Amino acid sequence: MDKILIKNVTILTMNKAKEIIENGVVVISGKKIIDIGDSSLESKYKGFFIIDGNGGILMPGMVNCHSHVSMVAFRSLADDEADRLKKYILPLEKKLVDKDLVYNGARYGICEMLLSGVTTFCDMYYYEDEVARAASRLGIRAILGETIVNFPSPDSKEPYEGLAYCKEFIQNWHKNDLITPAVAPHAPYTNDSEHLIKAYNLSQKYKVPLTMHVAEMDYEYKKYKEEYNMTPVQYLDSLGILDKNFIGAHLVLVDDKDLDILEEREVGISHNIGANSKGAKGVAPAVKMYKRGMKIGLGTDGPMSGNTLDIMTQMPLVGKIHKLFNSDRTLLPAKDIVEMATIGGARALNMEHLIGTIEIGKRADLVILETESVNMQPIYDYYSTIVYSANPSNVDTVIVNGRIVVKSKKILHVDFNDIRRSLLDMKDKILSATKEI
Amino acid sequence: MDKILIKNVTILTMNKAKEIIENGVVVISGKKIIDIGDSSLESKYKGFFIIDGNGGILMPGMVNCHSHVSMVAFRSLADDEADRLKKYILPLEKKLVDKDLVYNGARYGICEMLLSGVTTFCDMYYYEDEVARAASRLGIRAILGETIVNFPSPDSKEPYEGLAYCKEFIQNWHKNDLITPAVAPHAPYTNDSEHLIKAYNLSQKYKVPLTMHVAEMDYEYKKYKEEYNMTPVQYLDSLGILDKNFIGAHLVLVDDKDLDILEEREVGISHNIGANSKGAKGVAPAVKMYKRGMKIGLGTDGPMSGNTLDIMTQMPLVGKIHKLFNSDRTLLPAKDIVEMATIGGARALNMEHLIGTIEIGKRADLVILETESVNMQPIYDYYSTIVYSANPSNVDTVIVNGRIVVKSKKILHVDFNDIRRSLLDMKDKILSATKEI
Ligand SMILES: [Zn+2]
Ligand SMILES: [Zn+2]
Repeated sequence: MDKILIKNVTILTMNKAKEIIENGVVVISGKKIIDIGDSSLESKYKGFFIIDGNGGILMPGMVNCHSHVSMVAFRSLADDEADRLKKYILPLEKKLVDKDLVYNGARYGICEMLLSGVTTFCDMYYYEDEVARAASRLGIRAILGETIVNFPSPDSKEPYEGLAYCKEFIQNWHKNDLITPAVAPHAPYTNDSEHLIKAYNLSQKYKVPLTMHVAEMDYEYKKYKEEYNMTPVQYLDSLGILDKNFIGAHLVLVDDKDLDILEEREVGISHNIGANSKGAKGVAPAVKMYKRGMKIGLGTDGPMSGNTLDIMTQMPLVGKIHKLFNSDRTLLPAKDIVEMATIGGARALNMEHLIGTIEIGKRADLVILETESVNMQPIYDYYSTIVYSANPSNVDTVIVNGRIVVKSKKILHVDFNDIRRSLLDMKDKILSATKEI
Repeated sequence: MDKILIKNVTILTMNKAKEIIENGVVVISGKKIIDIGDSSLESKYKGFFIIDGNGGILMPGMVNCHSHVSMVAFRSLADDEADRLKKYILPLEKKLVDKDLVYNGARYGICEMLLSGVTTFCDMYYYEDEVARAASRLGIRAILGETIVNFPSPDSKEPYEGLAYCKEFIQNWHKNDLITPAVAPHAPYTNDSEHLIKAYNLSQKYKVPLTMHVAEMDYEYKKYKEEYNMTPVQYLDSLGILDKNFIGAHLVLVDDKDLDILEEREVGISHNIGANSKGAKGVAPAVKMYKRGMKIGLGTDGPMSGNTLDIMTQMPLVGKIHKLFNSDRTLLPAKDIVEMATIGGARALNMEHLIGTIEIGKRADLVILETESVNMQPIYDYYSTIVYSANPSNVDTVIVNGRIVVKSKKILHVDFNDIRRSLLDMKDKILSATKEI
């Protein structure tokens, strides 16, 4: 089924002119979009597999710029607890995270992303090759970073063994069309300068992205202020590791000077408002970042932090929280937020040549939102409907790289019940481990 | 079908002890819950209509404490515009709001509420008798306030004619089991003192609730400070109209002294965080209100302000925004938020003797959330799952007053397609009116 024609949809192209085509047609051949137009196009392409969008909204696949997908295994544990990273997450990971948990968690979480219209995600975890295996099997586009930390971790007996694990991971996966392996030092405060530079050099050697948590934690900010009289961003820049291939998650505790640096270095930014608000971390200056034209997309963070892995529930939060914090209801209109969720995320991951808009020549990563459900009508503004009314259940059809992976709200090609069972089979073990910590 | 037995559910009773019953059974006879227990109960009740919850979560029906349901007709119009009330809402209402729009909007919006597990709502609009007609037809519980304002309005040629309209409305509807008519002066700043007192006296005469927007707008706050050197709450209290039957919406711009007054007078509070954040109005001190044990529930406001009419999407916002504003991730744990959404709302509307918890003798207003969808697993904490993972599409079954109104995510007893068509038929007229303003 490599020739597909989608009809009877309103196309939000998200191209530069933000063209909207009512009653539009998009034509796919192989992995790519080969034509876009109005309903008259249909007669030109014979023998294509027809998807009737039933008056729905066709938009670019959404991009989740930061996640730890396998952590879905721990979702709904210890949500409102203080100092959760150190008290719950790290001890649980030490006890429980193995190849099986990472693979089974990734399979489940990737189903959740695909079903909610996420067609590309950027991840960071241990045993990231298992995430790659799951992503490849399910057919989602991904940048996958193997974690490097200064302590023994689930996949490293010694500190910094992640570097060697990562190197092998890159060698095994760097030729995959959908999967881009990456280097993921966990954060500045969990790596020393020497190993941050080593991680950077590894990413340079193989020309792969480097992704990292930056300027998220108050103790992180304090540490670099006290030890170096620098912000975390300034510290990383002093090591020479900030560049176009750097994808920074959070960037909450940043000042205008940091923004100058991030802009100058063309750093990609994952704005994770759901996780940042639930964790009371603060509000990243996403409006400033967006207005400067920086590379900013949206991310969910792991499902212990943000709980769900979809970008649709991030969008209303982005709008509401920034309007509220700036006492300005006109700030970040819905169109800008849909932009962050699509082409913004693609830019943050340096994939804007491939994905993020509906344009001829780009990969066919596409989502159809149905407009039949009660929450979706009336529609006077498509962007408003997506940002303020829609939820993940409105995603009807999802195509990644020209392949239909979700149809009529069901995931295709895999046995979801089996994937679900594998996740739930881990519950007892996780529960008893939680009780012991 | 007046005898129903629900089985194979986890019951969140939301009673004082917050009991949770795994694999529970709830028995309904007529309008009321007559028994609650574990699976052994099933054998005791023969011949009851069985609802198999399939391992889902049974919770009390949610309460939407503030809405203008018919405004769903205008949803997605002018969302990110400045000074929207005066520039868009009032002119649109003047041109367009008639009995048909109110009735058709209410039918559609009530379907949205029922489908999302809202079993009781408190509304305020023009032609509120049309909302009553729709609510009664669809079988939802409601407090419905006819609007009183100091200018000619859709249903009043002269200022304050709403008072007479309201009186007639009360007389026609005050004997209905599901519908409670109410008096709804729009806001302090759209009524003078004399008519606020008249409205209050009308509510006293017929022993019906009085509901009103209070302390929402910056210009409202300024007006009472300048003219009376009082806050809006202090001003209303000086008129003697704050009491147990008063349901105040928003209450954003309130200080500790105002909280003392509101607590002392036992005023019910609708906390509308979605609308307040999207409109950049500020954050009501809901945590303080909740901790004082005040009568606080959640509300959506109208669908031009909050866009959707469900309470499920309010819950994560309540948690996230208050944690963020107070830099404390432990604040308002998920259980407290589910409390606000159910029994909290019931208390705000003085209905805690009837609804808000799953207890013997209460009315059977119940919701089953399915736990099959990808976002709903794993469940380590039911409250967390509801607040941080669920969305309205997870509502499977809804019962109001002992009557099943939603089953398998579909609305029963009415033709939803017809209701949808009636709403969409108004689009052209609304769109051309919008272009003229
Ligand atoms: Zn993270
Ligand atoms: Zn309102």
